[in-house]
Amino acid sequence: MLEQVFANVRKNAPLVHCITNYVTVNDVANMLLASGASPIMADDAKEVEEITSICSSLVINIGTLNERTIESMILAGKKANERGIPVILDPVGVGASTLRTETALRLLAAIQFSVIRGNSSEIKTLSKGNGLTKGVDAAESDRFDQRNMDDMIKLTQELSQKTGAIIVTTGEMDLVVDGDSTFVIHNGHASMAKITGSGCMLSAIIGAFCAANRENLLEAAAAAVSAIGICGELAHEKQKATQSGTNSFRMFFIDSMSLLTETTFKERMKIETK
Amino acid sequence: MLEQVFANVRKNAPLVHCITNYVTVNDVANMLLASGASPIMADDAKEVEEITSICSSLVINIGTLNERTIESMILAGKKANERGIPVILDPVGVGASTLRTETALRLLAAIQFSVIRGNSSEIKTLSKGNGLTKGVDAAESDRFDQRNMDDMIKLTQELSQKTGAIIVTTGEMDLVVDGDSTFVIHNGHASMAKITGSGCMLSAIIGAFCAANRENLLEAAAAAVSAIGICGELAHEKQKATQSGTNSFRMFFIDSMSLLTETTFKERMKIETK
Amino acid sequence: MLEQVFANVRKNAPLVHCITNYVTVNDVANMLLASGASPIMADDAKEVEEITSICSSLVINIGTLNERTIESMILAGKKANERGIPVILDPVGVGASTLRTETALRLLAAIQFSVIRGNSSEIKTLSKGNGLTKGVDAAESDRFDQRNMDDMIKLTQELSQKTGAIIVTTGEMDLVVDGDSTFVIHNGHASMAKITGSGCMLSAIIGAFCAANRENLLEAAAAAVSAIGICGELAHEKQKATQSGTNSFRMFFIDSMSLLTETTFKERMKIETK
Repeated sequence: MLEQVFANVRKNAPLVHCITNYVTVNDVANMLLASGASPIMADDAKEVEEITSICSSLVINIGTLNERTIESMILAGKKANERGIPVILDPVGVGASTLRTETALRLLAAIQFSVIRGNSSEIKTLSKGNGLTKGVDAAESDRFDQRNMDDMIKLTQELSQKTGAIIVTTGEMDLVVDGDSTFVIHNGHASMAKITGSGCMLSAIIGAFCAANRENLLEAAAAAVSAIGICGELAHEKQKATQSGTNSFRMFFIDSMSLLTETTFKERMKIETK
Repeated sequence: MLEQVFANVRKNAPLVHCITNYVTVNDVANMLLASGASPIMADDAKEVEEITSICSSLVINIGTLNERTIESMILAGKKANERGIPVILDPVGVGASTLRTETALRLLAAIQFSVIRGNSSEIKTLSKGNGLTKGVDAAESDRFDQRNMDDMIKLTQELSQKTGAIIVTTGEMDLVVDGDSTFVIHNGHASMAKITGSGCMLSAIIGAFCAANRENLLEAAAAAVSAIGICGELAHEKQKATQSGTNSFRMFFIDSMSLLTETTFKERMKIETK
Repeated sequence: MLEQVFANVRKNAPLVHCITNYVTVNDVANMLLASGASPIMADDAKEVEEITSICSSLVINIGTLNERTIESMILAGKKANERGIPVILDPVGVGASTLRTETALRLLAAIQFSVIRGNSSEIKTLSKGNGLTKGVDAAESDRFDQRNMDDMIKLTQELSQKTGAIIVTTGEMDLVVDGDSTFVIHNGHASMAKITGSGCMLSAIIGAFCAANRENLLEAAAAAVSAIGICGELAHEKQKATQSGTNSFRMFFIDSMSLLTETTFKERMKIETK
């Protein structure tokens, strides 16, 4: 089933509107293209509603937010809700500044998100208001693994119920939660944390998978998380074989998405239902 | 003759002022350096006229336009006209939003462009006001090939006559048109559409070639289109030989420009006069 | 001793706040991660003070400055001074426009910098007000080598005394000067000038090394310059061995930082005391 979800991205080639940060925007655009989707980046208040209107999903990433683009995010998000297309939120660094926390809460109040994707600190901040975000990475104290996974699942489920959105919490394992339906995804590799943009690229790919699978958003999000994780694994194998560094990994990561077949996806995905 | 046009870029090392989008800006800067030119990116209204004044050409790309940078584009463009240096327009996504269409028309009214480079949808929109731009890519219905090439040439010639600019329409083949002088260029590879920024990089390289060949802008534009196409071909060969993905192609694409010799350029260029 | 300075970056994993240009920001973030530091990019006036407050150093780069971000630079710089954390200035293109020159002077008046890093034209402009900055690269007439190195050292020392900052002047050799203590660093490779961002990456890495070595800023700056130079040498060797172009060099450059060991650093660093 999930391999069909994967195949639909290439079949439908959805246009994905991204209002995203200027740090990782090029990798986000190239990762979307590698998946079979088409990116369009536009962040001016005067055009975002029109751009959202020709797209199949919207991805909002607050990585380098500013007053100008916050207004654009709200306008685009409302338009996406009006049209009924999926809207994804990546609350980068929420908890690291008042502006980020207030903006995330403002976005949550104004827009019905389909999927929210963050690391454990970001999800904790949204859920409880007390995550200890270390800049844009998860704080050591917020890390979750097998031992405290049940707590993280509970917290993720609560945020899903509160927001009505599918929540994706990424870490050593990844959680994809809709209400009390929970997937635990065991793909991925630690090298993904050694480059900037792994999280941003995942959020955009969730946008592409949701756009191409409008009737199955939970499966779409789970397949996207698994696909990105598989690309991380394949890139790590290539990096190891060539004894290369972190920037080669970054290239192999995007390369892997462009080369990923339905068969490999099916063979490698490790999705556990809880 | 055209190999001299190519060689002049390395000989003159022109400084090229780019007001461009934040998605592909790094690749644009590196591609300019690879060609032998020097990039300078500056977009604040308070400095663009001075920056244009020390440069040999100006490239305006509306890929992520906003109100602040639109004013800067107009100031810089007027200054470039005043100084008589080449000005290139890349009307990214024109037709996809009212802001983009209106901005392109405003720029055309305020600035005399030397070269305008777009895909078939963008050129159609500028020419007729009815291209069906699919985001930032050409719409399926606007594609041109051998069968409808004559229509596309006619439309490109009309836009050239209307604007007084050389028009470059890119697609399966590329057209370079000045009034009724027309070159059809048969270099390039489909992989160029699988990465973001091929078009932006081409527009910047046209800026470099025009800066280094002020007396031969038509030949400069044709040579630039051919050179970028050859880089696409060489990058594809490298990608195929290494069985790598789209991000490797992106790297090989810029690599190829830095490695391209006058001899290879001369041997591989496929420019037809119509 | 200096290898300990190098090792401290990986040991302390400092969080580095960058207010930087959108051209090279992705490479800057990835280079910081490759060194063992963590980057956070944030430039809105409403959050920069809070972001600086959770970081161990601040890097201000005026490569694509605008009115909005200039205010943010000043707010963040003052906060960093208040907290006593290192602040690094990269005055990209100072001398190329009045805005850049005035902004650099405004920043120097408002903020006590720990380190200022520029090419010879930029340092000359800050020092004498008459460097002939060629866009963002050093002008031919400002180049220094063995013959005129003593003049450049004198000028760098004067700027250090005037500003109270450590000055790093990069070129064929690199000078690291604090008052009249002077290091000349002989690492690096000419290929670094064939890509955009070598200077920006160096300035950010100085920020990481200073953050991890608060008691030894002069040694930290010297070690950072040497480490980046060694990465340039290693990347060039890899580029030569694979007969690849400038964009491969860029990847190998960042790769080399992620692969650089304390042993290789110690063996290859060429730091001369004057």
